Amino acid sequence: MENIGAVFVSEVVGTAMLVLLGTGVVANVALAKNKGLGGGFLMVTIGWGFAVFAGVVVAYRSGAHLNPAVTLGLVANGAKEFGLGVPVNAVSVLAYIGAQMIGAILGAIACWLAYKPHFDAEPDPANKLGVFSTGPAIRSYGWNLVTEIIGTFVLVFVVIAFGGNRQGASGGLASLGALPVAVLVIVIGTSLGGPTGYAINPARDLGPRIAHFILPIKGKGSSDWAYSWVPVVGPIIGGLLAGWTALSLLPLLAT
Amino acid sequence: MENIGAVFVSEVVGTAMLVLLGTGVVANVALAKNKGLGGGFLMVTIGWGFAVFAGVVVAYRSGAHLNPAVTLGLVANGAKEFGLGVPVNAVSVLAYIGAQMIGAILGAIACWLAYKPHFDAEPDPANKLGVFSTGPAIRSYGWNLVTEIIGTFVLVFVVIAFGGNRQGASGGLASLGALPVAVLVIVIGTSLGGPTGYAINPARDLGPRIAHFILPIKGKGSSDWAYSWVPVVGPIIGGLLAGWTALSLLPLLAT
Amino acid sequence: MENIGAVFVSEVVGTAMLVLLGTGVVANVALAKNKGLGGGFLMVTIGWGFAVFAGVVVAYRSGAHLNPAVTLGLVANGAKEFGLGVPVNAVSVLAYIGAQMIGAILGAIACWLAYKPHFDAEPDPANKLGVFSTGPAIRSYGWNLVTEIIGTFVLVFVVIAFGGNRQGASGGLASLGALPVAVLVIVIGTSLGGPTGYAINPARDLGPRIAHFILPIKGKGSSDWAYSWVPVVGPIIGGLLAGWTALSLLPLLAT
Amino acid sequence: MENIGAVFVSEVVGTAMLVLLGTGVVANVALAKNKGLGGGFLMVTIGWGFAVFAGVVVAYRSGAHLNPAVTLGLVANGAKEFGLGVPVNAVSVLAYIGAQMIGAILGAIACWLAYKPHFDAEPDPANKLGVFSTGPAIRSYGWNLVTEIIGTFVLVFVVIAFGGNRQGASGGLASLGALPVAVLVIVIGTSLGGPTGYAINPARDLGPRIAHFILPIKGKGSSDWAYSWVPVVGPIIGGLLAGWTALSLLPLLAT
Repeated sequence: MENIGAVFVSEVVGTAMLVLLGTGVVANVALAKNKGLGGGFLMVTIGWGFAVFAGVVVAYRSGAHLNPAVTLGLVANGAKEFGLGVPVNAVSVLAYIGAQMIGAILGAIACWLAYKPHFDAEPDPANKLGVFSTGPAIRSYGWNLVTEIIGTFVLVFVVIAFGGNRQGASGGLASLGALPVAVLVIVIGTSLGGPTGYAINPARDLGPRIAHFILPIKGKGSSDWAYSWVPVVGPIIGGLLAGWTALSLLPLLAT
Repeated sequence: MENIGAVFVSEVVGTAMLVLLGTGVVANVALAKNKGLGGGFLMVTIGWGFAVFAGVVVAYRSGAHLNPAVTLGLVANGAKEFGLGVPVNAVSVLAYIGAQMIGAILGAIACWLAYKPHFDAEPDPANKLGVFSTGPAIRSYGWNLVTEIIGTFVLVFVVIAFGGNRQGASGGLASLGALPVAVLVIVIGTSLGGPTGYAINPARDLGPRIAHFILPIKGKGSSDWAYSWVPVVGPIIGGLLAGWTALSLLPLLAT
Repeated sequence: MENIGAVFVSEVVGTAMLVLLGTGVVANVALAKNKGLGGGFLMVTIGWGFAVFAGVVVAYRSGAHLNPAVTLGLVANGAKEFGLGVPVNAVSVLAYIGAQMIGAILGAIACWLAYKPHFDAEPDPANKLGVFSTGPAIRSYGWNLVTEIIGTFVLVFVVIAFGGNRQGASGGLASLGALPVAVLVIVIGTSLGGPTGYAINPARDLGPRIAHFILPIKGKGSSDWAYSWVPVVGPIIGGLLAGWTALSLLPLLAT
Repeated sequence: MENIGAVFVSEVVGTAMLVLLGTGVVANVALAKNKGLGGGFLMVTIGWGFAVFAGVVVAYRSGAHLNPAVTLGLVANGAKEFGLGVPVNAVSVLAYIGAQMIGAILGAIACWLAYKPHFDAEPDPANKLGVFSTGPAIRSYGWNLVTEIIGTFVLVFVVIAFGGNRQGASGGLASLGALPVAVLVIVIGTSLGGPTGYAINPARDLGPRIAHFILPIKGKGSSDWAYSWVPVVGPIIGGLLAGWTALSLLPLLAT
C-alpha cells in the first residue's frame, strides 16, 4: 500500500509536469501577444515532446506511464508489476489512471495561471480551448478515431517493444528513457498530428477539458464535449491493440 | 531458419514504422487543412530522421537495416552475419529486401488511413504522390542519380565506419544506435535533400509508390513510374560504393 | 578555501558562457542585418537551451548552478555540500551568487563585442535592451511574477528531483547532465516563455541589464529598471518553492 | 609514420564529410528551386551542427580535429599527443592541417556535384559563393575578426575544458563526443553566427573558397579574396587564445 501511494504521487507529479509544459507551448503559439505567437507546428511538437521528457524525469518512481493508454497497454501486454513492487490489479490500474487525471487537471490549471493575461487578451474562444484539448482539423469522428488509434499504437508499441528488447525492464515510458520518449512523441506529432492534434493520451485531453469547463476563463466558449470521447476512446483502443500485438510479436523481436 | 523468420518480421515491422512516420510528416506538411500544413523543410527532415529512430528501436533483432542499400552495402563490405546468427547469403539478402518492401507498403497504407480525410480534401494530385514517393526538384535523371548516390553513400559509409570503430559490431543502423542514426538521417535531409527529396532507400520509395498505385486514393494522378528507377538504382549504387570504400579505408580509420 | 576559489572561477566561466550564447541568439534574431534576423522563437529557445549546455560543460567543477535560483533552491532543499568539498554556508552561497553575477556581466559584454556593428545599425532601442534582459509581453507585474515563479519552479524542481532519483548526486544543473538540462531549458522556453521571455535566473537578467546600463551602446534607451525586480524576485521565489516542495515529495519519488 | 598516414586519412575523410554536409545545407536553403529553399537560419545551424557530428563519427582515429583552429588550440594547450600514438610536432601539425584543407576541398566539390542543376539554375552569383564560404553581414574587417575570434574561442575552449574534466582524454572534437559537439556547433551558429556566418574553421572556409575559384561553376562571380583572410586569421587567433586560457583555468576547473 505504501508503494501504491508513492506511484500515485509520482504519476500526479509527472502528468502535471507533462500537461503544464504541453498545454503551455500551445498557449505560447496560439494566444494573443505571446512572444512565441505563430511559432509553428514544429515548435509545438518539440514542446510537447520535451514536456514528456520533463514528466518522465520526475516520475521514474512509477515507471512514468503518465497516460492511461500506456497503463492499459501494459496490462494487455501481460505486465505483472508496475514500477517497483506494485502488482498489476484493478486497484493499481485505477490508482494510475486516477493520478493521471488529477495531474492533468492540475497541470492545465497551472498553465492557465502562467498565461492568465494572454487568455484575457485573446479574442477567439476556439484558440482558448485549443490550449487545453485537441480538436479535429476535419471533423469526421470515424476517421479521427482511426488517426488517434494509429498514433497511440505507435507510442505504446515502441515503448513496449523497446522494453522487451531490454529484457526485464518493467514497462512505462521510463523503460525507454526520457530522451528517447521525447523523440518518439515529437515524431508522432510531426507525422501523425496533422488531422487531430495527437491527443494519444486520454488523461492529457480529458483532464484539461475538464479544467477548461470549470475554470473562470474570460470569454471562453464551448468545451466541445461532442468530440471529447474521440481522444479518450481512440487512445485506449490504440494502447490495447499495441499491447496485444506486442504480445505475439515480441517473442520474435526481442533479442 | 528460425532466425531468418525473426529477422524477416523485424525488418517488416521496423520498415513499416519508418515509412508510416516518414510519409506521415510529408502528409502533415503537404495535404490540405492539416494542422502542420506549410510546416517547412526542417520539420520534414526532423520527422523522417525520428521516423528512422522509431524504426530502429523496434528492429534491433535484425540489426535494423530497413533499407536494401544498407543490406547491399554490408554485403559489399564483406559482412559474414546479419543480426544475430543469420549468415549472409542469397536467401538472407532476399529475405531482408523482401521484408523491407512489404514493410514499406504496409507503412504507406497506414499513413493513408491516418490521413484519409486530408487525401480527400487535397486538390493537387502531385501533393498526394509526394506523400508516398520522392520526385526531383529539377528533372534531370543523370544528376538526380548523382544526388541519390552521394546521399546514400553518406548514410551507409557513416554507419559502416562507426560499426568498424566499435569493432565487432554486426552492421545495420542499429550498430550506430537509434538516436545517432536519426541525427545522420536529419543531416542528409537538410544537406542533400534539396534536389531529389533524399529517397536514399529503394524500399522507402518503391514500396509507397506501389501503394500509391494500388490504393483507391481519391483524385490521384500518375505514380510517375518514369522517375521511379532513380531512387532505386541511385541508392543501390551509393550503398555498394560505400561498402567497397569502407573496405579499403576502414583498416586505416578503425581504432 | 581553495575549493571556494575553484567553484568561484567555475561559476564565473560557466555563467559567462551561458549568457554570451543566450544573449547572442537574441541579438542574431532581433538586431538589424543579422543573418539570423527573424529566425523565430523556436530558434531562440534552442539557442538558450544549448547555451546552458555549453555553460554546464565548462562548469562541472562547481556542479554548474549558473543561477542564484538553483543555488537557493538547493539550500532550501537542505543541501550539505555544493560541488565537491564546498560546505553550504553564507560564504559559499554568496560566492556562488557573486560569481554568477560577474559571469553574466562578462558574458553580456562579450555578446556586445560580437555584435557591435549590428547594435550600431539597429534603430530600435527596445530591441537592443531585449538582447540583454527580458521584458513582459503584457506588463502586469503580478502575473509576470507568477509566470516567472512557475517557470523557475519547473527548472529547479526537475533538477532536484532527478538528482534525488540518482541518489547521492550533489545538486546543480550538472547533476541532471548537460544535454538533459538543455532539453529542460528549451521546453521551459517553448512552453512558459511566451508572457515574460523566461528569465528564470536572476543573474541572467540582472547582470546583462547592468551591462546594458554601463556599456556605451549607440542609441540605447532605458534599461527598464521598473521591471527589473520581477525577473529577480520571481525566480528566487520559484527556486525556493521548488526546493521546499522537493523536500516533502522526494522521499516518495526517489527510487 | 604509419600512424601519421592513418590520422591523415582520418582527417581528410572527416573534414570532407563535414564540409559536404555543411555546404550542402546552405545550397539547399539558398539555391533556386531546391525543396529546402528559404528553410531558415535554424535549419542551417542544425545542418552544420549535424554535419560536424557525421565528420566526428568517421574520424575517431585522429581524434577528429577537422579544423586547424582545434589543432593549433591543442598545441597552445600543451598537448603531447594527437589521436593515438602521434606525437605533436611540426610534421604532425602540418599533416593535420594539410589533410583538413584537402578534405574541405573534396567535400565542397562533392556538394557542387550533388547540387549541379541548382547551381546552374541560380541567377545570383553571391548565393553561389555563399554555399562555399562565409561572408560578413556588415563588412567591417576588424569587427568581423572579433566575431570569428569569439566564436572559435567558444568552440575550442569548451572542447578542451570538457577533455580536461574527463582527464586523460586526448584532445580533438572526439573527446567531447559527436553529439555534444553537434550541440556546441549549433549554438555557436544560432548565437554567434549572425554577423559573419561563423566560419570558426580556416579549412572549412578557405578550402571551399579554393574549390569555388577552381570549379567551372556556371555564372559564378568573385571568390571575394579580400575577405578570405578574416575566417582564417580569426579562428586561428580564437583557437590559440582558447588553448592558452584553458592552460591557466583548467587546473581550477578540472575535477
